[in-house]
Amino acid sequence: MKFKVIKEDKASGARLGELIHNRIKVETPVFMPVGTQGTVKAAYHLSFSRLDFPVLLCNSYHLYLRPGVELIRKAGGLHKFIGWDRLILTDSGGYQIYSMSDLRDISPKGVRFRSHLDGSEHFISPENAIAIQQGLGADIIMCFDECIPYPAGEKYAASSTSMTLEWAERCKRAHRGQRGQALFGIVQGGMYPHLRRECALALKKMNFPGYALGGLSVGEGAEKMRAMIETTTGELPVDKPRYLMGVGKPEDIWEAVARGIDMFDCVMPTRLGRSGTAYTSEGKLVVKNAACAEDFRPLDSKCSCYTCRGHSRAYIRHLFNAGEVSGMMLLTLHNLTFMDKMMARIRKAIAAGRFDAEKEKFLAPGY
Amino acid sequence: MKFKVIKEDKASGARLGELIHNRIKVETPVFMPVGTQGTVKAAYHLSFSRLDFPVLLCNSYHLYLRPGVELIRKAGGLHKFIGWDRLILTDSGGYQIYSMSDLRDISPKGVRFRSHLDGSEHFISPENAIAIQQGLGADIIMCFDECIPYPAGEKYAASSTSMTLEWAERCKRAHRGQRGQALFGIVQGGMYPHLRRECALALKKMNFPGYALGGLSVGEGAEKMRAMIETTTGELPVDKPRYLMGVGKPEDIWEAVARGIDMFDCVMPTRLGRSGTAYTSEGKLVVKNAACAEDFRPLDSKCSCYTCRGHSRAYIRHLFNAGEVSGMMLLTLHNLTFMDKMMARIRKAIAAGRFDAEKEKFLAPGY
Repeated sequence: MKFKVIKEDKASGARLGELIHNRIKVETPVFMPVGTQGTVKAAYHLSFSRLDFPVLLCNSYHLYLRPGVELIRKAGGLHKFIGWDRLILTDSGGYQIYSMSDLRDISPKGVRFRSHLDGSEHFISPENAIAIQQGLGADIIMCFDECIPYPAGEKYAASSTSMTLEWAERCKRAHRGQRGQALFGIVQGGMYPHLRRECALALKKMNFPGYALGGLSVGEGAEKMRAMIETTTGELPVDKPRYLMGVGKPEDIWEAVARGIDMFDCVMPTRLGRSGTAYTSEGKLVVKNAACAEDFRPLDSKCSCYTCRGHSRAYIRHLFNAGEVSGMMLLTLHNLTFMDKMMARIRKAIAAGRFDAEKEKFLAPGY
Repeated sequence: MKFKVIKEDKASGARLGELIHNRIKVETPVFMPVGTQGTVKAAYHLSFSRLDFPVLLCNSYHLYLRPGVELIRKAGGLHKFIGWDRLILTDSGGYQIYSMSDLRDISPKGVRFRSHLDGSEHFISPENAIAIQQGLGADIIMCFDECIPYPAGEKYAASSTSMTLEWAERCKRAHRGQRGQALFGIVQGGMYPHLRRECALALKKMNFPGYALGGLSVGEGAEKMRAMIETTTGELPVDKPRYLMGVGKPEDIWEAVARGIDMFDCVMPTRLGRSGTAYTSEGKLVVKNAACAEDFRPLDSKCSCYTCRGHSRAYIRHLFNAGEVSGMMLLTLHNLTFMDKMMARIRKAIAAGRFDAEKEKFLAPGY
């Protein structure tokens, strides 16, 4: 994997970059849509190529439980199984284990948990988190870590972060020699700046091709999150990509870019779409609201996506009222287009040296 | 509306035709996808243009109840409301009233019924069935009729058919003068050949621009249905399009074409798709079955649709197992492509003078 920073913003930490991996070029900052179970929900994911999403995120935890690594291996790997010819990033499963599984027993050895699907018992260690991700065959994979909940006491956060670091070492050892697969380290540390710094520095010594920031956007609020991002990116090497996991809202993304983040993933655009809310150049629009009942304008007059070219707010509202899946499909497509265009605008603004002004302008309506 | 028969098959009643209406050309025999509530379920309907579906069917009953005719009128008509720039055919609502509404009280004046949505009471007469369809603004609209259930005694069938004829007169009177909207008559008569013949003859005298066959595929079985089609088309004018309502399965369509039918609509391809079954060149394939678990072939090796170009049976089965809407989306798209290609093959076979041979070949796997 090759990464280079093309331009650094003078007034902020924003950076324009280029990541090349397995012959696919990714312009950063980049937003990666989430395809939890091997598909972006309510979407034909292949058609996203047109939207210029070069990376799809899939969740190891879900795919490990169903359909299982063995089947995906037989299919020739995750790309072939789901029919996606660009990059795939898989997470380690840690976050889902903590947030979704029924029972979990965390020890330095690994985590014992019960599947949220059938209650079956499983054990995941750093070593088999890597083995699972190698079996799936993604282009970018993640270290197995513990996501510290918020709030958490300093003592717990410190010992959890130590374990995450120890696991990172074990992941790196287990991963050694896998061609074409870049393993990213994950910075934890809760909301304690010194723990974040120590974790970042320790991971930096292990020399990963990229670094993620985990355990953020877990209820700490925008201010704390931004402070943690700034603290962390300050310690990370300049010439490696930085990935803020599970974030986020348009505003969060602009602010994180301003603090040196290059990669993002979030279920928000697709989840909001499925529940009837659109991102527009004038802020969020709850299409299901009665205000849209006789509103024959497109979701966003400045958008040229499939949905906005052919359909009105009133029509989409009708589809939601009538329980038609195509309502979810139309909003999903629109919101992903919004993210795609927003990232392009961020990149263009950095290139043109007017990132801060664009940020202010873009975020004026509030998101 | 202009219609001409381009070629008649020598060995059967099959005919190749061309219908031109509101500047849209429709090659017949044609299959019309069903967009009950103003959308084809689990599909982006605009993209169907690429599949060459020139006519979309929408249901007056559903649209009348929700979102209501007034809203659609305000939007500038159904085409604008749903974003469809080709032809739209609306049914009269009769069939849905009989099959879906909670209470119905049929009299020569019209039908009183309760909405299946909220139990509200409504009254539809032939006159306001036309007014509703004029409000919606479809290109082809249907007379209000009574769909005779199967089985039905001859006496009931005869008096119901008389009423349908009387309603057809009233619909024609109510419709008079509406530009760009073709009103089709509907032949009823239950499973009584003489009633079918009498009804067809009486409608013919009223001189409709097209004729539909209603009340078929209601449980009578393939043999009776085919006999009724043959009896009816024998009495209909040669130079007008004939539309078999709500039919059907691939086999039914070939057999009906052989008996002189030009137009079809059916929910089957989309409904089957949503429940996990695909039409393929080798017959029906239940993708949800365990047999597909490790089957990495496309649904149909002879199909070049979006789904078959990029996705395997195993993947689609996984999507259904995982409850992902995209499984329904992929099968819907594939099954509609199948119908589109099948109709093209029917037309080509008639043009080439080898309809019967193609029919036998196509239907060999059984559907």
